[in-house]
Amino acid sequence: MVVTKKVDIYTRKINYYDTDQMGIVHHSNYIRYMEEARIHMMDVENIGLDFVESRGLVIPVLSVESKFIKPAHFGEDIEIHTKFTKFNGMKFAFEYEMYNPETKELLNTGSSSHAIVKADLTPISLKRKHPDFYEKLVELYERDKDE
Amino acid sequence: MVVTKKVDIYTRKINYYDTDQMGIVHHSNYIRYMEEARIHMMDVENIGLDFVESRGLVIPVLSVESKFIKPAHFGEDIEIHTKFTKFNGMKFAFEYEMYNPETKELLNTGSSSHAIVKADLTPISLKRKHPDFYEKLVELYERDKDE
Amino acid sequence: MVVTKKVDIYTRKINYYDTDQMGIVHHSNYIRYMEEARIHMMDVENIGLDFVESRGLVIPVLSVESKFIKPAHFGEDIEIHTKFTKFNGMKFAFEYEMYNPETKELLNTGSSSHAIVKADLTPISLKRKHPDFYEKLVELYERDKDE
Amino acid sequence: MVVTKKVDIYTRKINYYDTDQMGIVHHSNYIRYMEEARIHMMDVENIGLDFVESRGLVIPVLSVESKFIKPAHFGEDIEIHTKFTKFNGMKFAFEYEMYNPETKELLNTGSSSHAIVKADLTPISLKRKHPDFYEKLVELYERDKDE
Repeated sequence: MVVTKKVDIYTRKINYYDTDQMGIVHHSNYIRYMEEARIHMMDVENIGLDFVESRGLVIPVLSVESKFIKPAHFGEDIEIHTKFTKFNGMKFAFEYEMYNPETKELLNTGSSSHAIVKADLTPISLKRKHPDFYEKLVELYERDKDE
Repeated sequence: MVVTKKVDIYTRKINYYDTDQMGIVHHSNYIRYMEEARIHMMDVENIGLDFVESRGLVIPVLSVESKFIKPAHFGEDIEIHTKFTKFNGMKFAFEYEMYNPETKELLNTGSSSHAIVKADLTPISLKRKHPDFYEKLVELYERDKDE
Repeated sequence: MVVTKKVDIYTRKINYYDTDQMGIVHHSNYIRYMEEARIHMMDVENIGLDFVESRGLVIPVLSVESKFIKPAHFGEDIEIHTKFTKFNGMKFAFEYEMYNPETKELLNTGSSSHAIVKADLTPISLKRKHPDFYEKLVELYERDKDE
Repeated sequence: MVVTKKVDIYTRKINYYDTDQMGIVHHSNYIRYMEEARIHMMDVENIGLDFVESRGLVIPVLSVESKFIKPAHFGEDIEIHTKFTKFNGMKFAFEYEMYNPETKELLNTGSSSHAIVKADLTPISLKRKHPDFYEKLVELYERDKDE
């Protein structure tokens, strides 16, 4: 079977309030754009946060990394390419590349890793308790993982 | 009996990430400073949000107003004077004046009004269910109200 | 001549990071949504912030008001109706109504007033120095003002 | 000569608006706390951002990393330990550890790397143009670097 790798693409405008006095997007906002992008991907894949939270689960962030290659500015769009690159049954990870869609310049690369836990932040066996969600994440991982 | 009016004073530094590309504090952040200031006052008066939330209550904001008189900048402090100016048993209001503590210039005036409701956002009779909290708010109001 | 009143409509998703521990959009974010909405309207009317800033002008906010009628939540859209309601040659104002586009409920009403000044925040005569911009604002005002 | 390693300690309160609907500090805010902490350290060392910007320089962020070990909550303080761990004449880096000062628990570890450039974001030779600033950074690096 051939698995076609797929990258989810999410585009958003830069807001004025995203800038700082350097005249560029404040670096902390890329972390927020990453959140928007992975939520977009999960929505597209029918495992959006309403799906997750309706099962009494939350997905806290374990770690993030972000490299600021070129600055983004107010008035520009930013296009975020998201891949689902890791899954071990309890944790998963995303990788992100952010572009200026007009100039095609790469602005930022990043990654985030996450746990799936109960709403009270205690552990759960996804495979046993939510096998459909588990299978969906395996499928995304098989599709997107780096080889 | 003489009631001495009292203004709670709260001072904080301006963060770099509070600025925007105009080189000044983004106006939305004054709304956040107001929140910090009223939480400070409530802490000082022993009715802090831990007290409120431990009783299964929350204090949603009903309205805010803010007048931006002079801009604040990164590197400066901002000093916020807070008064508890209205209370009718279910709703209350604060008034704020923000100063540059070095130049004494008035930077901002604002107000916010609030409801006290249950954590699920449904109404409650404070006077009946939490008479100590109710009495404390009456006392603050008698002290700070505008005459 | 019949002037057709026009309301600019801008819709955006609620981000996860817009929420607070009450489980609703933090009230300060409505002030940011207002900024997005008026920038959208100015873009639609060809007087976007790039137009403004290319002339060495900035548009600081003088005041905002916001009434929080019903809470917005993560996963919902919010639809903002914006009108240009005041203009006196140096200052102007917008009014906003925010809706849940699915339930049609009114969530928030607000307003903001603004000055047009030079980038160094000193005054300018718009009518004399930028008559085309001035005329455009008169036109918007004539169209949207409350009668 | 004995160089005493020194860790700058910066403590701040968690704001209500720092939380999200998971009831914990939104992860993006740790990136902002890191900024506050390094600005605090630079102030303490007399190379604060006013010093930097008065010389026509800015310090854009090149990368950040953050590991979220335990969540912080509204009403708690957070204590940030900052070290200046890298400097090569053009770039430098900080490392951060964040603690709950009451429980002594480690909440977060992170790092950030930075360039020193002109305000227009073009390169500069710090050693040649600002030798005093250069020497100060060498001194901090010698003091804090990991051996």
